[in-house]
Amino acid sequence: MIKTTIIRSKKPRLKDPILIEGLPGVGHVGKLVAEHMVAELGAKKIMEIFSPHFPPQVIVEDDGTVRLVSNELYAYKTKGKHDLLILVGDHQSTSNEGHYELCGVFLDIVEEFKVKRVYALGGYGVGQLVETDTVLGAANNIELVRELKEFGVEFRANEPGGGIVGASGLMLGLGALRGIEAACLMGVTSGYLVDPKSAQAVLKVLCKILEIDVDMAALEERAAEMEKIVAKLREMEEGKTPVTSDEDLRYIG
Amino acid sequence: MIKTTIIRSKKPRLKDPILIEGLPGVGHVGKLVAEHMVAELGAKKIMEIFSPHFPPQVIVEDDGTVRLVSNELYAYKTKGKHDLLILVGDHQSTSNEGHYELCGVFLDIVEEFKVKRVYALGGYGVGQLVETDTVLGAANNIELVRELKEFGVEFRANEPGGGIVGASGLMLGLGALRGIEAACLMGVTSGYLVDPKSAQAVLKVLCKILEIDVDMAALEERAAEMEKIVAKLREMEEGKTPVTSDEDLRYIG
Amino acid sequence: MIKTTIIRSKKPRLKDPILIEGLPGVGHVGKLVAEHMVAELGAKKIMEIFSPHFPPQVIVEDDGTVRLVSNELYAYKTKGKHDLLILVGDHQSTSNEGHYELCGVFLDIVEEFKVKRVYALGGYGVGQLVETDTVLGAANNIELVRELKEFGVEFRANEPGGGIVGASGLMLGLGALRGIEAACLMGVTSGYLVDPKSAQAVLKVLCKILEIDVDMAALEERAAEMEKIVAKLREMEEGKTPVTSDEDLRYIG
Amino acid sequence: MIKTTIIRSKKPRLKDPILIEGLPGVGHVGKLVAEHMVAELGAKKIMEIFSPHFPPQVIVEDDGTVRLVSNELYAYKTKGKHDLLILVGDHQSTSNEGHYELCGVFLDIVEEFKVKRVYALGGYGVGQLVETDTVLGAANNIELVRELKEFGVEFRANEPGGGIVGASGLMLGLGALRGIEAACLMGVTSGYLVDPKSAQAVLKVLCKILEIDVDMAALEERAAEMEKIVAKLREMEEGKTPVTSDEDLRYIG
Repeated sequence: MIKTTIIRSKKPRLKDPILIEGLPGVGHVGKLVAEHMVAELGAKKIMEIFSPHFPPQVIVEDDGTVRLVSNELYAYKTKGKHDLLILVGDHQSTSNEGHYELCGVFLDIVEEFKVKRVYALGGYGVGQLVETDTVLGAANNIELVRELKEFGVEFRANEPGGGIVGASGLMLGLGALRGIEAACLMGVTSGYLVDPKSAQAVLKVLCKILEIDVDMAALEERAAEMEKIVAKLREMEEGKTPVTSDEDLRYIG
Repeated sequence: MIKTTIIRSKKPRLKDPILIEGLPGVGHVGKLVAEHMVAELGAKKIMEIFSPHFPPQVIVEDDGTVRLVSNELYAYKTKGKHDLLILVGDHQSTSNEGHYELCGVFLDIVEEFKVKRVYALGGYGVGQLVETDTVLGAANNIELVRELKEFGVEFRANEPGGGIVGASGLMLGLGALRGIEAACLMGVTSGYLVDPKSAQAVLKVLCKILEIDVDMAALEERAAEMEKIVAKLREMEEGKTPVTSDEDLRYIG
Repeated sequence: MIKTTIIRSKKPRLKDPILIEGLPGVGHVGKLVAEHMVAELGAKKIMEIFSPHFPPQVIVEDDGTVRLVSNELYAYKTKGKHDLLILVGDHQSTSNEGHYELCGVFLDIVEEFKVKRVYALGGYGVGQLVETDTVLGAANNIELVRELKEFGVEFRANEPGGGIVGASGLMLGLGALRGIEAACLMGVTSGYLVDPKSAQAVLKVLCKILEIDVDMAALEERAAEMEKIVAKLREMEEGKTPVTSDEDLRYIG
Repeated sequence: MIKTTIIRSKKPRLKDPILIEGLPGVGHVGKLVAEHMVAELGAKKIMEIFSPHFPPQVIVEDDGTVRLVSNELYAYKTKGKHDLLILVGDHQSTSNEGHYELCGVFLDIVEEFKVKRVYALGGYGVGQLVETDTVLGAANNIELVRELKEFGVEFRANEPGGGIVGASGLMLGLGALRGIEAACLMGVTSGYLVDPKSAQAVLKVLCKILEIDVDMAALEERAAEMEKIVAKLREMEEGKTPVTSDEDLRYIG
């Protein structure tokens, strides 16, 4: 395999679809949201994307079978104005050049389905344990910025300071070059731990925007579990050092 | 040399061949097994594979001559139902993209010889010195999982946790995309030392599966030697520290 | 996006243009000078260059919109003999091979506009805090060396000792292969900090060479601010250690 | 520049030429020998090889001009049976794949000039300061091994243990695939310092093999200077620690 390869199931007819991108990244926030949506909505897998820019790796399933690491596209027909396409996956590209190539492939799909709006989901790592449901935004046109502010998405001048790196960033940046509207929704998170709580915050905003309902019980459960883990980590740290700061947990996860 | 290049000897006619892949990896378990089979069975070299994805390196032989690092394919005609193709080599690809390209080349060979079953051999590093003859399995279809369980191969949910990386993983993953049955047999090993004992365990299972006999004396000898080395390492460690744990040998090898 | 891509505005007619290259590098000296010129002169953007050799990243603007990292070409019509093309950007290539490819693209532009002279701007890091307005030069033909000496540019045998690396170096080296005259002007700087003072020195020399006037107030302001920062750093260091050397600030910035 | 590019002067007619490769490597032994030969024999430059696999770098000359890093081919007409081609350069490839590509280019040149014998020069780093004029050999056919033993070249089973890496190794390995006779002559050296003494040893053997005379005065001078440096290093080390071992100089150079 020398080029990125797509294996397609039957192509569904979709009504003015919106694409949600939730590949792995900071705090796995985007991945958690997108995979949760796929599971709760019962979205149908319509494409598998394999690429030499992914690690040379298979994942072992519970039954002893394996599957090659991939990105996957799911489709979901809503009762509203827009059907959904949801892009999830095991990995992002392992090389810079691969990011550009893969994102080009994703945008070809966007054009194929006449998607006019993309939401790229991710996390915004602030470097310390936080408990917040802030969702930071960025978009590739100013109208979209205004629109998202109505939904409580925060926009801060020059934040994230380091820009947005990887698939989410390129969906916006390369998307703009093709005239595709795209926004990034970033849950504020520590950046050290998988963060289902931040994922909940992002999902809530996204549901409002998309005018859909998604059961959050599973995500709440995972968030509750994670809170217990964090609490234990804090206790452990307190046992060691009389004064505890959030920074003590920096290298966990 | 810009592309992977194959130099072929005369192409043998093979009876429903099975391909054994034993390239270098964890504990060199797969390499030990496959090279041992080539030597004991007297398999014939039929292909040399050179690639810019291998290190830019020649190996110096005993007589002062050199040979370019390569992967090699050997053929062996059995008296049973299936002849054998055995893939061995000095190195795997040095880059991610190269792994995908090379594995594509291997699978082209698999298709050329109408191979329908591939056994990819490897080691499963558990991070401490172990004495076990456990062989862990993974396969690219569920029937094959069931079949291998009959031969004592163990399948554990989500193990190896990090998936299977490199040529062995891709033989299964990319093989599945081409409809080629493939299984991975992994000898449980520390991951710190070359492990002929674990190789013996894998070879025993493989011989049962293939219904062939392979003399194991040479491998037993190497295993015995290695055990002496390990014993000495343990003694040395015991001299230093009153309490010895397996972990003390972690960084040897 | 698999190849470097240029998006062009209407192509201006330019009078015997000179190209100024000021991409990010040591002390960001070249970038500061070139961006300052673009701002002060009101040069017009005529090209955006996107490339898979840049990081996969968008930059978030003050208003919450993003833009894909790029290099940009600006044009400025002077009243003198030569109009100006100014090349600025967020990043240089992230790979060696990418540097060669991108510099080939830049030189294609140079040939397209019949540019006969290129000034590549940069910093020369000396490894300690310095206060100097020395501008070191290098050029791809000896006539140009002589000419630049008249403007006070210093040439030192075998300096920079490590050669000139990146876009500036290649503009001279690859330019020579195409018969394009090119010189590098390097402001002497520590290499640890962004250095607007060194940028001022380079800009002064460049203005003399180009026979143009550029208001330096903004750059002077930044230099003054930076001097305060450096002064504070020195004080902090003095508080810690009785004897202070410039080397104490080595790892800042 | 996307591909390796050759700039040629007029092609000389050469009598059964032998190619000497002396690119930078361990102790710069090969480079010292080849550059010394070019200078002493007054060989003529006939090709410049530029490549995106070299660093993106220009070298600054004494007069302030620059030149792009390159490999260069020189020709020298002897009075004997074989004229000489000498390959020298600033750098080897920075990537594995680039080594394979560049060596392919070198072997195309070998075939173009109907060269039937290649001597690849290098150093063999033993990890401690040594004073020896041992020249270790390796060759891509057994006849050549026998022939070189007559000239005092040493061949040791499986040495160098790590094989021969880079251009020298590939000249032998890839050369064999094209039916080109090639041998590697490696001066035994510490591997920590540029070693003109080891270069002298290699040059002496090479002169005998080629039946040519090369004045060694310049190389002797450099060797004498280097010996003084080494002696000082030893003294410095002795001042510090009562017992000195060669290992103390390990990280110098």
